[in-house]
Amino acid sequence: MAKISLITIGNELLKGRIVNTNATEIGSMLRQHGFALDRVLTVPDIPAAIQAAANAELALSDIVLMSGGLGPTKDDLTKHCLAELFDSKLVIHQPTMDFLEERYASRGRLLTETNKLQAHVPEVCEVIPNALGTAPGMLFQQGHKVLISMPGVPFELVHMVSHEVIPRLNNLFSKNYYAYRILRLGKLPESHAAERMSEIEELLPSKIEVAYLPRHDGLWLELSLTERQAERAKAEHLLNKTFERVASHLAPWRYGEGEATIATLLGDALKHKGFTLAIAESLTGGMVASHVVDVSGSSAYFKGSVTAYDTAIKTSVLGVPSDLIQQDGVASEAVAASMAVKVRDLMKADIGIATTGLAEDDAATGEKAHAWIGIADGDKHLAERVELFHSRNVNRTRAANYALMIALQQINLHEAS
Amino acid sequence: MAKISLITIGNELLKGRIVNTNATEIGSMLRQHGFALDRVLTVPDIPAAIQAAANAELALSDIVLMSGGLGPTKDDLTKHCLAELFDSKLVIHQPTMDFLEERYASRGRLLTETNKLQAHVPEVCEVIPNALGTAPGMLFQQGHKVLISMPGVPFELVHMVSHEVIPRLNNLFSKNYYAYRILRLGKLPESHAAERMSEIEELLPSKIEVAYLPRHDGLWLELSLTERQAERAKAEHLLNKTFERVASHLAPWRYGEGEATIATLLGDALKHKGFTLAIAESLTGGMVASHVVDVSGSSAYFKGSVTAYDTAIKTSVLGVPSDLIQQDGVASEAVAASMAVKVRDLMKADIGIATTGLAEDDAATGEKAHAWIGIADGDKHLAERVELFHSRNVNRTRAANYALMIALQQINLHEAS
Repeated sequence: MAKISLITIGNELLKGRIVNTNATEIGSMLRQHGFALDRVLTVPDIPAAIQAAANAELALSDIVLMSGGLGPTKDDLTKHCLAELFDSKLVIHQPTMDFLEERYASRGRLLTETNKLQAHVPEVCEVIPNALGTAPGMLFQQGHKVLISMPGVPFELVHMVSHEVIPRLNNLFSKNYYAYRILRLGKLPESHAAERMSEIEELLPSKIEVAYLPRHDGLWLELSLTERQAERAKAEHLLNKTFERVASHLAPWRYGEGEATIATLLGDALKHKGFTLAIAESLTGGMVASHVVDVSGSSAYFKGSVTAYDTAIKTSVLGVPSDLIQQDGVASEAVAASMAVKVRDLMKADIGIATTGLAEDDAATGEKAHAWIGIADGDKHLAERVELFHSRNVNRTRAANYALMIALQQINLHEAS
Repeated sequence: MAKISLITIGNELLKGRIVNTNATEIGSMLRQHGFALDRVLTVPDIPAAIQAAANAELALSDIVLMSGGLGPTKDDLTKHCLAELFDSKLVIHQPTMDFLEERYASRGRLLTETNKLQAHVPEVCEVIPNALGTAPGMLFQQGHKVLISMPGVPFELVHMVSHEVIPRLNNLFSKNYYAYRILRLGKLPESHAAERMSEIEELLPSKIEVAYLPRHDGLWLELSLTERQAERAKAEHLLNKTFERVASHLAPWRYGEGEATIATLLGDALKHKGFTLAIAESLTGGMVASHVVDVSGSSAYFKGSVTAYDTAIKTSVLGVPSDLIQQDGVASEAVAASMAVKVRDLMKADIGIATTGLAEDDAATGEKAHAWIGIADGDKHLAERVELFHSRNVNRTRAANYALMIALQQINLHEAS
């Protein structure tokens, strides 16, 4: 199995100004294609650091991927380092120059001398086209090893990895069969999940790796397996059999499977039942609606939402009775249920979801952060209380995810239509 | 200046299952305290890899920080590696044991034998308390160098770094004076900013480092400077003088300063003027409201919002005239302005913001993704068109940020009251 290092270059990464999502994306894409990232190293925009990193990782790994340090504002640091490392001079790569001329002309922009430098590459490299940007990628061979330099702009990088880099790695290196399945569990803390899993430990083959991934939308339990390609069919069977066993053991907490967002799962359930949705939000302040709209095609089932942040709006726009609010308080079971019913009726939807509550502990009253999730579904309406233990915005995110999860569970109670 | 390496441990990081926000947080905290992170290395949950990384980074750096690989579900991998590396045996750390007993008792939970293992630490280390969790941190000295192992749970880690680790580094290592200021620029692409900056290149002292940070809320231009502590006053003066020069040169694009979210800047402007806010959203689907509610204290000025995702809701709930929608289309200047006016009036607010548009290119009609941002302010209402070039959800995020930015610019037109 080929060993892979990734070097991400950039002062802004080290200063904590930007999050290294490039490493996450590359790790994820490699995994899904049967490769595995072994190391990620982040170094500053300093030639000596880049060169030392390239040398050290080439000694350790079969494949060294690099991102960043290309492009005019970075002075093409990486390119010069690599030319020196592979003892090669920079030459003009005519296809890249043609591409640049065409790209700039089509946008009515002038191709300056600085821009033209993007077409200069070390003579010994294979140029990798950058379909979405101006700095090309470069592949260097060293014996059986390869080093591939890529731009740092996230969407250029992701496109290059999936369209250009992974096909080349597939040609050059053998890889294992890798498969995984994810069980989605609601309201089950990681430590409890580990306890429940230990009850069926003897049913878990040693080849299956178990990972606990706590997320805002509950716990993702990942079962995965790596095996030689020749054993693929057997491995697939083993994974599926084990997954079914675990899923049935954890059935009380299971709300879904796979990697789709909870809003996507909810959207699928709504479409399947032919239901439409309306949302009323207080503490989540628009986040539940925004998650629903994140899903492409949500206009098929999503009517809209009201954020009733000011208490007066709960009465004036939604029509929640003001005496109910006075009697039970805004953060109450009755108000959550009423908000769900009222927004469902206001927008003529089938299902109403509502959130109200306290996003952070109230030091004055001693009341703890919590959310009430209201659901209106036909003649039924109900509200469920969720305790929140974190900071204001983590709590809001959790409450929004719980709202979607509780709505999904409610819709799943209907017989398939 | 002490050289610092960070080792983040975790298979899930390498598989791209979770984003390495711990590295971002640590980089940012160190920077703000005058330290600088030089390298970040991510390795898997494999003892040999952890030990090799610790050895290699100790050879390169003065300070090695490690996070992850602690706690019962990880089998305390890191602790065993470090005990071996520093040739020390594990012993019970009584204060940690007492802390664990108290913590479990207060939550009514049983302290199992597995849990008790958290109080076992290598004899040679200094134990660093973990106020928010059960796995303590550990500090090892090797000559003038230190290695500090910390938990991987983000909120435990952040608390430990700020409360325990940085004070210890302050005692053990000297550091430079570091200062930075950030200019916030709207609607100015990075390449144009670089051109504008080159016009005043001779006014930029070589000590000032310029970084271009493209964000969803425009371009952040960072000016920073590192200097010996003795030169602090001079350095501070130089940074401020340069910042004012650059800010005045880029005045047409400047909408703010510093690192606050754009919703925070808007909230400050609203509070300052004594205005209240209401929002109507279509393509952003609740995201503008959610950003506003992200700001603690937003209940002082935020009334609420309507997400009118279904066109019918724009008429039935907001009251946008249906013939206007039929005549101009939902994604139009007139509808954006009307939505802003109607939601402002519905919620009896001073300022109304509205978004409508097309979140992705329409292949059928050839229409390009764009947003119309509507603003209602007293007798004035207007709408501004914003072109969107990315994927659906990046476009929605950009549109939401533009909506807040355009509202901020409108409010800033008022004389200070």
